[in-house]
Amino acid sequence: MLGDIPRVDDDRVLVDFRTGDDAGVYRWAGGPALVQTVDFFTPIVDDPYAYGEIAAANAVSDVYAMGGEPRTALAIAALPVDGPGVDVVRQIFRGGYDKLAEAGVVVLGGHTVSDPEIKFGYAVTGEIDPARVLTNASARAGDTLLLTKPLGTGILATAGKFLRASEPDLQAAIASMRRLNRDAARVLRALDPGVVSACTDVTGFGLTGHAAGMAAASGVSMVFETASLPILPGALELSLSSLPGGGRTNQAHFGARVSVSRLVDEPRRRVAFDPQTSGGLLIVVDPRAAGVLVRELERAQVTVWTVGHVEPARSDGILVGLA
Amino acid sequence: MLGDIPRVDDDRVLVDFRTGDDAGVYRWAGGPALVQTVDFFTPIVDDPYAYGEIAAANAVSDVYAMGGEPRTALAIAALPVDGPGVDVVRQIFRGGYDKLAEAGVVVLGGHTVSDPEIKFGYAVTGEIDPARVLTNASARAGDTLLLTKPLGTGILATAGKFLRASEPDLQAAIASMRRLNRDAARVLRALDPGVVSACTDVTGFGLTGHAAGMAAASGVSMVFETASLPILPGALELSLSSLPGGGRTNQAHFGARVSVSRLVDEPRRRVAFDPQTSGGLLIVVDPRAAGVLVRELERAQVTVWTVGHVEPARSDGILVGLA
Repeated sequence: MLGDIPRVDDDRVLVDFRTGDDAGVYRWAGGPALVQTVDFFTPIVDDPYAYGEIAAANAVSDVYAMGGEPRTALAIAALPVDGPGVDVVRQIFRGGYDKLAEAGVVVLGGHTVSDPEIKFGYAVTGEIDPARVLTNASARAGDTLLLTKPLGTGILATAGKFLRASEPDLQAAIASMRRLNRDAARVLRALDPGVVSACTDVTGFGLTGHAAGMAAASGVSMVFETASLPILPGALELSLSSLPGGGRTNQAHFGARVSVSRLVDEPRRRVAFDPQTSGGLLIVVDPRAAGVLVRELERAQVTVWTVGHVEPARSDGILVGLA
Repeated sequence: MLGDIPRVDDDRVLVDFRTGDDAGVYRWAGGPALVQTVDFFTPIVDDPYAYGEIAAANAVSDVYAMGGEPRTALAIAALPVDGPGVDVVRQIFRGGYDKLAEAGVVVLGGHTVSDPEIKFGYAVTGEIDPARVLTNASARAGDTLLLTKPLGTGILATAGKFLRASEPDLQAAIASMRRLNRDAARVLRALDPGVVSACTDVTGFGLTGHAAGMAAASGVSMVFETASLPILPGALELSLSSLPGGGRTNQAHFGARVSVSRLVDEPRRRVAFDPQTSGGLLIVVDPRAAGVLVRELERAQVTVWTVGHVEPARSDGILVGLA
């Protein structure tokens, strides 16, 4: 939609929407730069408090993925005039508020509109060292790929809507989505510059879509060992009955640039294309530092899996391989 | 909805949503403070480019009303899957982009969701001198009330939807709504501190609603000379046939705290309660400086009208008088 919008000639803009990065970065006179992002969506779980928490964790995640620390938020809410009742709405706002408080973020204001369909989320501003912005564009061949949360939230949420998911499996997905990417981001910021060459959070485009975007921006290919992918309990089984619409869209949009080995079964392929909400960080790290980084993340109680590596760009247009 | 949200203990928060001010203000290490606001709404005019312009002018207006200068924006869009066509959407975004560029604001990113009903707007961040924040809370008895745009945009937009407004009257309303409050804000910032005691922009709550909020926060009453109110051409006549829903809501919500003289006719009463989009600044100024300020505004080509004055708080709960 923004394709015909002219480029702004303002050297304070360090990152904007044109690079496919998670958030924009703007230089601020005399202090850290601003890192800004906005996200809101329809309920993906039944529990209104958890919905608010997940919306907040998801909104601030883009700031963490760029290497920043979120500071302020503006609430964005769309609510039906004839429901869902003031208690439900309060729980959504309260879940979001509590999660933001955990992240050290203050809510400065917000805007609510009437709408036939509930939507909730935030515009978030964080601070970031302009010399240490993690983008999509600098992954290096040879680097190791790490992922900090299991995949499958889209499948689980869809299965939950149709009452096909078990309660423990649903709760595991909710626990993962409500978890902040804060501690992972702090570990990354404490590393020497250049050790981590790129980072993004895995959200609506799924693992393959976000990896394809990063690979294209960096001029490399990425190969994932699908046997090593962390997957939420129940997601493989439910992928056959409960494929979310976004999974089909991701397959249609990114499929031509993703090669899938014949050894990869259909459930794992679906999980790799599954749209995530409040997903983990996909971290691209110098292989010599990967072991230390994994230990540092585990010491910070961040779950982390080694999921693949970066290769030189292929000549056939393939950006991502599922091996 | 936010009533049970606990107060955050963070001395970087200079203004938040609790005070009924137009935007939040947050202290930033080493530079000017951030002033942040979010607003988006359904189309109020047929022309998609003008709709984008008005959404942008309206969103940045809260920053101007607090005494700030807007710098960055994140676009917020809700669009039907099956319409309105990519050309229309591009025109909305382009109108917004061009108006923001006029304001010196860069678009860093945005978020679009599918929705049965179009909505469009922005989350905006500006910079502000933390020692010069204009709030609702410090209007002084004896001060003069100035208004920089004519009233009646809600009535005109409603009349436009039902094809009751003449094309010149509609165009005058659109011209007013797309106009930035930037130049007025710059004149205010150039004054000595304290000359202007309070400021707000007149938007959805209408003149009486915003004045009532300011009067309550400041512990004063405000009296408007309704014969002096600037009113868009056609608005008085159309007020009887084309009262927007928000006008009724404002009357219901604020009516009990507004006394209306018997000399005020029904059309003028309706205009005083009319919800505005991208309305003007309501400026509260020391009466000894009011004449100079009016001349400075006119020199900056800002339209301005003297519309009333501030009185000591009344004991009967009346906050606003329409005389």
